[in-house]
Amino acid sequence: MTRKDLIDIIRKRRSFLCVGLDTDLAKIPQHLLKEDNPYFAFNKAIIDATAPYCVAYKPNTAFYECQGLDGWKALELTVDYLRRNYPNHFIIADAKRGDIGNTSKMYAATFFDQMDVDAVTVAPYMGEDSVTPFLDYPGKWVILLDLTSNKGSHDFQFMTDADGMPLWEKVLRTSARWADEDKMMYVVGATQGSMFAQIRRVAPKSFLLVPGVGAQGGSLAEVCRYGMTDECGLLVNSSRGIIYASKDTDFAEAAAAEAAKLQNEMDGYLTKAGI
Amino acid sequence: MTRKDLIDIIRKRRSFLCVGLDTDLAKIPQHLLKEDNPYFAFNKAIIDATAPYCVAYKPNTAFYECQGLDGWKALELTVDYLRRNYPNHFIIADAKRGDIGNTSKMYAATFFDQMDVDAVTVAPYMGEDSVTPFLDYPGKWVILLDLTSNKGSHDFQFMTDADGMPLWEKVLRTSARWADEDKMMYVVGATQGSMFAQIRRVAPKSFLLVPGVGAQGGSLAEVCRYGMTDECGLLVNSSRGIIYASKDTDFAEAAAAEAAKLQNEMDGYLTKAGI
Repeated sequence: MTRKDLIDIIRKRRSFLCVGLDTDLAKIPQHLLKEDNPYFAFNKAIIDATAPYCVAYKPNTAFYECQGLDGWKALELTVDYLRRNYPNHFIIADAKRGDIGNTSKMYAATFFDQMDVDAVTVAPYMGEDSVTPFLDYPGKWVILLDLTSNKGSHDFQFMTDADGMPLWEKVLRTSARWADEDKMMYVVGATQGSMFAQIRRVAPKSFLLVPGVGAQGGSLAEVCRYGMTDECGLLVNSSRGIIYASKDTDFAEAAAAEAAKLQNEMDGYLTKAGI
Repeated sequence: MTRKDLIDIIRKRRSFLCVGLDTDLAKIPQHLLKEDNPYFAFNKAIIDATAPYCVAYKPNTAFYECQGLDGWKALELTVDYLRRNYPNHFIIADAKRGDIGNTSKMYAATFFDQMDVDAVTVAPYMGEDSVTPFLDYPGKWVILLDLTSNKGSHDFQFMTDADGMPLWEKVLRTSARWADEDKMMYVVGATQGSMFAQIRRVAPKSFLLVPGVGAQGGSLAEVCRYGMTDECGLLVNSSRGIIYASKDTDFAEAAAAEAAKLQNEMDGYLTKAGI
């Protein structure tokens, strides 16, 4: 999906919501456990219910891998279901991969050839050749970890060099030489709302994937205030707050209601920004 | 496996060789393609041939994931085969994972519960809570990326703070607060041989997993000269140089011969260090 397509979808659907498919057997409604593949049954119902209100889905690979073959199969089925039935939704494999060049090539093949997602989250620590193999696929995106939403983000991401430049800024500036805003987005956590103004000084046009709204405590208002551009420039993710809104047979309707609430709020911010 | 067990095995087997199972369908002998699971058939033969000469095996998850379910199954079969038949070999899942706490927990469950490997490679960018869930398993290890062997390692790992401390050193010092040398090792690339003296000033006792010997150009002599401790403290990995020593029906014998050559060299370095 191109940048233009993504912006068009955001405008039309009046939403920049990404639904995180962090599907956990211990948390899904127990009546689904009798299904052949409970993960996929859950995801399918969540997707069908929330699709009108979001522009993206983000399965986190860890939740699938930890179930071995069944989990990996559920991930493949989920991506395939999205690809066939919702071609105008952006699919993000939240995999946080990154390795030396010839190995990153394999990861890129996993997610772009095997699964055909639109974007993969990638860790920056190993530098250029760990990231660039993901850029070789037309229409596909890298979403590079920059400033994450967890407590541990303070361990290294704020380390500053002799000129006072923090690591998160160095990642933005260095990676801008590998790809522009048509191929690269950044993960910026919502729990650090006021940081968005600083990020925008360095990356004024890039799309930012923003986890941490809801369960992790981030504020959508603050993210939009400091992070929104005149083309939106945001994909705001919510996982647990939507997909586990109810643990009962009404889980899909409850998820839809939560997604609709966020979409409605987002519509307001888009309108306010003239989008 | 405990640190003491690992050191004992190194002493007895006169080797600190780790064989990297970067198994690639395009590179394995073509007669194996008729097997039910060519990856596993290849790995099994390589393992049986090289086991006397090495102390560890390191499947790189990317090479399995990129084949979807068949690949993931081959990885599970390989770890299971090692666990049953070679209980005194250390198994490393070279996965380079790392995510927020509740997600890293899932990755830890994947590799330590689902697969029962001894160690997982983890990326440090997201800090403490992305790493510590892997430390909750008795007898299991984290191998944290520190100074990698690829060209891109120069992009961020050598960034220095106002006091002149590079990021790789900050990773060593900060992570030493999360676990000691009984639970944590570090990835240090062999292509940066002279750096081992600097690493040892900060991490005098930690085991270092050293990729980059052989195909990537690192020198075993230099690694041992600067990096070996009085308990060895090294696991030196070779992948392509061993497993693709021959592309013909004699591939297992050729792999054994390459592994034996390295083991013989390693025996010399161990003896010289009084180990």
